[in-house]
Amino acid sequence: MAIQLPGFTMKNPLMPASGTFGFGEGYAKEYDLNLLGALVTKSTTLAPRIGNQGTIFADGPDSTLNAVGLKNPGSDVVLHEKLPWLATQYPDLPIIASIAGVDVAEYAAVAKKLSAAPNVKALEVNISCPNVKQGGMAFGTDPEVAAAVTRAVKAASSVPIFVKLTPNVTDITAIAKAVEQAGADGLSLINTFVGMRLDIATGKPLLDNVTGGVSGPALLPMALHMVYQVAHAVRVPLIGMGGISSGHDAAEMLAAGATALAVGSANYYQKRAIPKIAAELAAIQEGQTVL
Amino acid sequence: MAIQLPGFTMKNPLMPASGTFGFGEGYAKEYDLNLLGALVTKSTTLAPRIGNQGTIFADGPDSTLNAVGLKNPGSDVVLHEKLPWLATQYPDLPIIASIAGVDVAEYAAVAKKLSAAPNVKALEVNISCPNVKQGGMAFGTDPEVAAAVTRAVKAASSVPIFVKLTPNVTDITAIAKAVEQAGADGLSLINTFVGMRLDIATGKPLLDNVTGGVSGPALLPMALHMVYQVAHAVRVPLIGMGGISSGHDAAEMLAAGATALAVGSANYYQKRAIPKIAAELAAIQEGQTVL
Repeated sequence: MAIQLPGFTMKNPLMPASGTFGFGEGYAKEYDLNLLGALVTKSTTLAPRIGNQGTIFADGPDSTLNAVGLKNPGSDVVLHEKLPWLATQYPDLPIIASIAGVDVAEYAAVAKKLSAAPNVKALEVNISCPNVKQGGMAFGTDPEVAAAVTRAVKAASSVPIFVKLTPNVTDITAIAKAVEQAGADGLSLINTFVGMRLDIATGKPLLDNVTGGVSGPALLPMALHMVYQVAHAVRVPLIGMGGISSGHDAAEMLAAGATALAVGSANYYQKRAIPKIAAELAAIQEGQTVL
Repeated sequence: MAIQLPGFTMKNPLMPASGTFGFGEGYAKEYDLNLLGALVTKSTTLAPRIGNQGTIFADGPDSTLNAVGLKNPGSDVVLHEKLPWLATQYPDLPIIASIAGVDVAEYAAVAKKLSAAPNVKALEVNISCPNVKQGGMAFGTDPEVAAAVTRAVKAASSVPIFVKLTPNVTDITAIAKAVEQAGADGLSLINTFVGMRLDIATGKPLLDNVTGGVSGPALLPMALHMVYQVAHAVRVPLIGMGGISSGHDAAEMLAAGATALAVGSANYYQKRAIPKIAAELAAIQEGQTVL
């Protein structure tokens, strides 16, 4: 099940989606993180961010709405504490550091800083977070802006870069081609859809941030379609994600054109989701499972 | 629970979403269609269409993928058989005739024809079907093209027109404002998201049409957000739809800014979905239900 991504090898194609796994400490109590193919860290900004306050989660049938909003300890803590802890505990586990910012300069500064860490094998450039007023998705819905961030990060980074795309666009292939031409070594897709819930007693939005990111198993058909579209539009490898919660889903995402896979909100529903999915996928690939 | 839309009154705000109810004959065996606030018919084209062949449905957890593809008996049959049957059986039931076409001329021709039927109180202009190679969603993702179809239909129709919007766009408010300015009396949103599933044995798409429209309860947060956005961007009334399967969902959609509501794939899960939702909504609005 080993796969090759630009600059590093993964023992299996599975990793947690950024934002659903923190920096691994919590899940390390659930299972041996060496079972992961790689670990994608929480999107990190130059300075710490407290994220959105008040109500930041709302669950629906088979979809999760979150407005966490890039809450993170900042690049210093990640560089000097989080990444060294992962290197000590899991010396062979490739880390993909997710980065974010409010402007191109911040993206480049964080890229330069985190890509220097020895266990960081790639960066994931988060230009698709729907829960921040500046940066985030605003960068990901315009091909030229997305390309500008990509160029700046590529110039600053000493490791390969994956750009994470938002599904909230008319034509995701336009964004994908723009960031590929701007130097992206790979793409991650899809991030969450924008959504909201309302309090029917007050008529007001349920989340303090008004909107949040929707994810969960029901979104798999949309994620598969966008990976399928982008795989036919670019040459760089894709990390496919969006609604994967079983080995069968994982196999579909590979069939759609992904090289590697990320599992997000399934981690909320089932702590050991990734090892379970990895085992199911292995059984399918070795022909042990009837399709 | 009565509500007023341009040109007609509905006894309650609920109607079936076009494409999930045919022309009512099937559901008429399940319950008295007078329980509906209005009935939206299957999108009708000038000539009959056989729709897509082969595999056209695939179900996922809390979402349905369909690639029916505007299968309909054509405007003559609808005008001379389907609509008269409804008028005889349900003389007080307002009918919203959904129309589609491959070009602006066809939309206008069908509009002129069906708007002449006495029980047709409005037209719903389907510029958002994702399952046809020509017309459909291709019209709904570009503000200018959407406006051109709207102008032509408005000029040809003798009843108010609602334009049905696709969620597969970067900014749904841009489309909404363009069709409002072009003369739409109201808007219906959201149609389905584009999605696909793959056969992991063959690696090929499961649907013969490759892609289909995704709908179902899990999409409610995205539908609520888009109705909320559009309600803040235009003045015309909105028919809100997308994932409604309970009175609570319906109340949220009204709180988001919809005037009327359509129920789609919930009809697949539960034949009497609409009467059930109408009763639940009435209980909420009369304060009988604890929120």
